[in-house]
Amino acid sequence: MSIPHAGPVLVLGGARSGKSSFSERLVEASGLGMHYVATGRAWDEEMRERIDHHRARRGEGWTTHEEPLDLVSLLSRIDDEQRVVLVDCLTLWVTNLMMEGRDMAAEFAALAAFLPEARARLILVSNEVGLGIVPENRMARDFRDHAGRLHQIVAEKSAEVYFVAAGLPLKMKG
Amino acid sequence: MSIPHAGPVLVLGGARSGKSSFSERLVEASGLGMHYVATGRAWDEEMRERIDHHRARRGEGWTTHEEPLDLVSLLSRIDDEQRVVLVDCLTLWVTNLMMEGRDMAAEFAALAAFLPEARARLILVSNEVGLGIVPENRMARDFRDHAGRLHQIVAEKSAEVYFVAAGLPLKMKG
Amino acid sequence: MSIPHAGPVLVLGGARSGKSSFSERLVEASGLGMHYVATGRAWDEEMRERIDHHRARRGEGWTTHEEPLDLVSLLSRIDDEQRVVLVDCLTLWVTNLMMEGRDMAAEFAALAAFLPEARARLILVSNEVGLGIVPENRMARDFRDHAGRLHQIVAEKSAEVYFVAAGLPLKMKG
Repeated sequence: MSIPHAGPVLVLGGARSGKSSFSERLVEASGLGMHYVATGRAWDEEMRERIDHHRARRGEGWTTHEEPLDLVSLLSRIDDEQRVVLVDCLTLWVTNLMMEGRDMAAEFAALAAFLPEARARLILVSNEVGLGIVPENRMARDFRDHAGRLHQIVAEKSAEVYFVAAGLPLKMKG
Repeated sequence: MSIPHAGPVLVLGGARSGKSSFSERLVEASGLGMHYVATGRAWDEEMRERIDHHRARRGEGWTTHEEPLDLVSLLSRIDDEQRVVLVDCLTLWVTNLMMEGRDMAAEFAALAAFLPEARARLILVSNEVGLGIVPENRMARDFRDHAGRLHQIVAEKSAEVYFVAAGLPLKMKG
Repeated sequence: MSIPHAGPVLVLGGARSGKSSFSERLVEASGLGMHYVATGRAWDEEMRERIDHHRARRGEGWTTHEEPLDLVSLLSRIDDEQRVVLVDCLTLWVTNLMMEGRDMAAEFAALAAFLPEARARLILVSNEVGLGIVPENRMARDFRDHAGRLHQIVAEKSAEVYFVAAGLPLKMKG
């Protein structure tokens, strides 16, 4: 469970798979300054509950940042080799970028360029969303295409990749 | 494929992944008295067909129980170290509990408390449902949250956890 | 990454999981004559884009065949031990068979009978679609049942089975 210096850690999993808890344990085991980047927006009561639930579980000792869009910019500002930064999660970031009409390929390329240069240890959490029936609406199909492409890009730059199910991590890379 | 005494076996998989067949083979290899707990309700013709299909495949030698709600109570009544009990499946139990407005956390806690005490060997089958797009309706989102939480709870108490795809078991724990 | 002679290779994965790229690399590493079987129909602009995107990525050196329905018949015609044939993908074939009202069990049995006899090396790509919430409409439920059954049948006849996520192959068999 030690975090490698050689590159980011990507933690994929389904809804309520335990991927965030697993990632938090990786962070807490590192002994470094703990930073949490929440990409979710509290659009409604349900989302606010989920964010508060995560925050309560993390407990003391974390510095929390909220950044729905300019992820690379934020990561650059807090980049420090004495820190470990947990980004939770990439799929919410993808959702926000789509809603703002951002250039997805450019955003993904900027993240891909940043990852190998990062001095902080990065743990990137994301939802695997491509294993159900093809969604009926185009936007959902585009979303899972973007998420899938991003996962391939980030996995390629990552030192370790885990797939989490039922709270159990399966190492896919590293 | 031998079943451990040290705790339950959780078998996760998608629709038509072969998780039930795999579980049945585990049971049949045990040499113990074979008990089958069906949690599904035959709401309609389609569900009745699925139940009958499963029953026909199992063949002779099984004792079948139907219990949509009070799973722990049933498991307690048939608990015996000369028996192996296949529960098929946890996700249908979750559905039934939700429809009855049961206290999900309390039900899950009761199961979690029972599992380490069970004398029978338990094989618990469940559907992984959290790897698609976020469902549009709240009830479906709640369902997959409950299912995901239950999987984490049960996996933590299990001696072995398998993820089955295309009929092939991947050991996640044990 | 060498392709075995002992039977087909099944490559399962979600949407944009990198399963096609992985499969293409298997083919290109074989040194054999490269054949691509597209089962998708260009129903609309979106599908046409996806097909063209795949075709552009493959580049030179491939012979492309389009066959939405009579897959076994096509595979028989191009069957040759100096060839490797990539079928992309089984789930689109299932969709087309359903739309034409074909006898699914008979079609699957014919494929299952052909696979062990094939002289060409076969790489069969398919979408795992059974890991989300139960779909609300019956046709989608039937589709994922058919796909799941086909995956079990093909996996049983395959020498190797991979599950691909985030571009990373996880060997399930072989």
